[in-house]
Amino acid sequence: MLSKALNAPQISLTGLQNRDHLCSRVVYRRFARNARPLMSTVKRKSPCLCVANAEKLENASTSTASKTSFPVMVNGCAGNMGRAVAEAALSAGLQLVPLSLTSPHLGNQKIQIGDVEVDVRSASEKDDVYDLILQNYPHVVVVDYTVPSAVNENAELYCRMGVPFVMGTTGGDREKLLDVVRKSNNYAVIAPQMGKQVVAFQAAMEIMAEQFPEAFSGYKLEVTESHQSSKVDTSGTAKAIVSCFQRLGVSYDLDQIKKVRDRTEQIEKMGVPENYLGGHAFHTYSLTSPDNTVAFQFQHNVCGRSIYAQGTVDAVLFLAKKVKSNAEKRLYNMIDVLREGNMR
Amino acid sequence: MLSKALNAPQISLTGLQNRDHLCSRVVYRRFARNARPLMSTVKRKSPCLCVANAEKLENASTSTASKTSFPVMVNGCAGNMGRAVAEAALSAGLQLVPLSLTSPHLGNQKIQIGDVEVDVRSASEKDDVYDLILQNYPHVVVVDYTVPSAVNENAELYCRMGVPFVMGTTGGDREKLLDVVRKSNNYAVIAPQMGKQVVAFQAAMEIMAEQFPEAFSGYKLEVTESHQSSKVDTSGTAKAIVSCFQRLGVSYDLDQIKKVRDRTEQIEKMGVPENYLGGHAFHTYSLTSPDNTVAFQFQHNVCGRSIYAQGTVDAVLFLAKKVKSNAEKRLYNMIDVLREGNMR
Repeated sequence: MLSKALNAPQISLTGLQNRDHLCSRVVYRRFARNARPLMSTVKRKSPCLCVANAEKLENASTSTASKTSFPVMVNGCAGNMGRAVAEAALSAGLQLVPLSLTSPHLGNQKIQIGDVEVDVRSASEKDDVYDLILQNYPHVVVVDYTVPSAVNENAELYCRMGVPFVMGTTGGDREKLLDVVRKSNNYAVIAPQMGKQVVAFQAAMEIMAEQFPEAFSGYKLEVTESHQSSKVDTSGTAKAIVSCFQRLGVSYDLDQIKKVRDRTEQIEKMGVPENYLGGHAFHTYSLTSPDNTVAFQFQHNVCGRSIYAQGTVDAVLFLAKKVKSNAEKRLYNMIDVLREGNMR
Repeated sequence: MLSKALNAPQISLTGLQNRDHLCSRVVYRRFARNARPLMSTVKRKSPCLCVANAEKLENASTSTASKTSFPVMVNGCAGNMGRAVAEAALSAGLQLVPLSLTSPHLGNQKIQIGDVEVDVRSASEKDDVYDLILQNYPHVVVVDYTVPSAVNENAELYCRMGVPFVMGTTGGDREKLLDVVRKSNNYAVIAPQMGKQVVAFQAAMEIMAEQFPEAFSGYKLEVTESHQSSKVDTSGTAKAIVSCFQRLGVSYDLDQIKKVRDRTEQIEKMGVPENYLGGHAFHTYSLTSPDNTVAFQFQHNVCGRSIYAQGTVDAVLFLAKKVKSNAEKRLYNMIDVLREGNMR
């Protein structure tokens, strides 16, 4: 089953950093483990998987792939966000690896994403899945949209394996996560907010606050944010932007942020389209001068997951570019991705 | 008349750069000129103006002024913008010099600004007016809101005199203006846009465009600006912001900017208050993602002249601070003013 999944074409990114050492690591790990690999059945059925398929896949890569394409593995692609990223990756011309990991408590399943049938495997099989991935997709970039409880363990695994990864999953022990990745000598992008344009706006506000302290001194601020009614806490982005305005001289407490969770108010007051009531992020910041003669208003209104999926694909392209150019192996963020410009 | 005008208290800014050399220059200029000084009548009536008033003014300064106050001369204060700046300077606790220059074609007049009666003199008298100013207000900062035809001549005069100045007047030969001031070894702020917060927003967009090229690639843009119906050309600020969006990857031509000059549309569509139809600057920039799931909107809506007057006073405070700290004598702009933070 797995071997069939791996028959999808594997495309090399010319100049990608040599990862030959991974092979020996895979062999070492296979022998080092006491537990019998869960994939051993598959492997026995296809004893020459590595060699035979490598040749087959190499042929496929030269015939079908665009020059910029490379394999992307999306873990958690049975979830809404993971699926959106997998679809965006395909739309961007990348090669979706037909294997994905999900929570250890969920059973295996197959899901169709575009024309790729993805074999979704329980995280309990991860060692074996990665053995196959590293053998057949040595230039893979991994995207993680799993669950908060898996964040730290997954990141540690990616670092040990030396695969570049984009961590889109929120939660977990963030401090530990960043610390582990920083020390790992690996390529990674970790960002709590993958919406590239929202990050750009946020960064512009940060820069304005840093460069022009107190520029809006005395101005009054009103902040309203609307999210799907299941979101209990206040928008983190709104809080971050408010902290910029505070440094710009505006007197405002975070608890003054108005949370809109009522569906009628969302439609009538915020203008949220009805079909996005279940998934949106609308923000309005209104500044008024002390004498009421000047008003500024900034809005960023996001419906659905498209912006985050596109931003994640940009982060994937960024990592591939970093690997290709032998750039510094380190932890990057969405600001770094934005600085790189358009990579499509 | 002039001597009476000069009886207003003169306040020293402790630590202001020594300008004793100006006295000798004044004397030199007075002898060098062949024409009889127009002020000679006044001077004859008050032969000891410099000495007598200096003592009087010094006493006044120690008794009434706040520590941060210093004299500001507003040229063109009979005009709307000049008057607004003069009023804002008074509100900020600065000392308004009771002398102002206007166009050479206009007759002398007296105008009341707050509790200061300002003697507005024709520009043809400027040499004499400045002789008196330099004698009695050696620490003056000059603000210019005159007419485009006077911009270059006035700036050259301020530079020759060595008085720090804020040029708020638009028009004239701007290239020559900047060139002359740059070579003059004088403190000056020249800016076509004095609205500090608008400049901050513009700078943030500039930085975003510079740092994150193509971040909004594929986004659609709509720009609408509304100004008083007498404004024929398209908003320069709108053009500048559009150039940022172009660098951010948006395909948009300057001639697509929608100019609103119809009063009904201004009220109903743009929300311009009726009493500001004659003087406002409203701007709306709307960005939409290619798949229409993401929308950004930025607005800066200015009614009247208050923001420009306040910004000009900030520029004046900035120059006084630069003089006081013996900073580099050079041409500054509103970005430099913004970087200085809140000076009030």
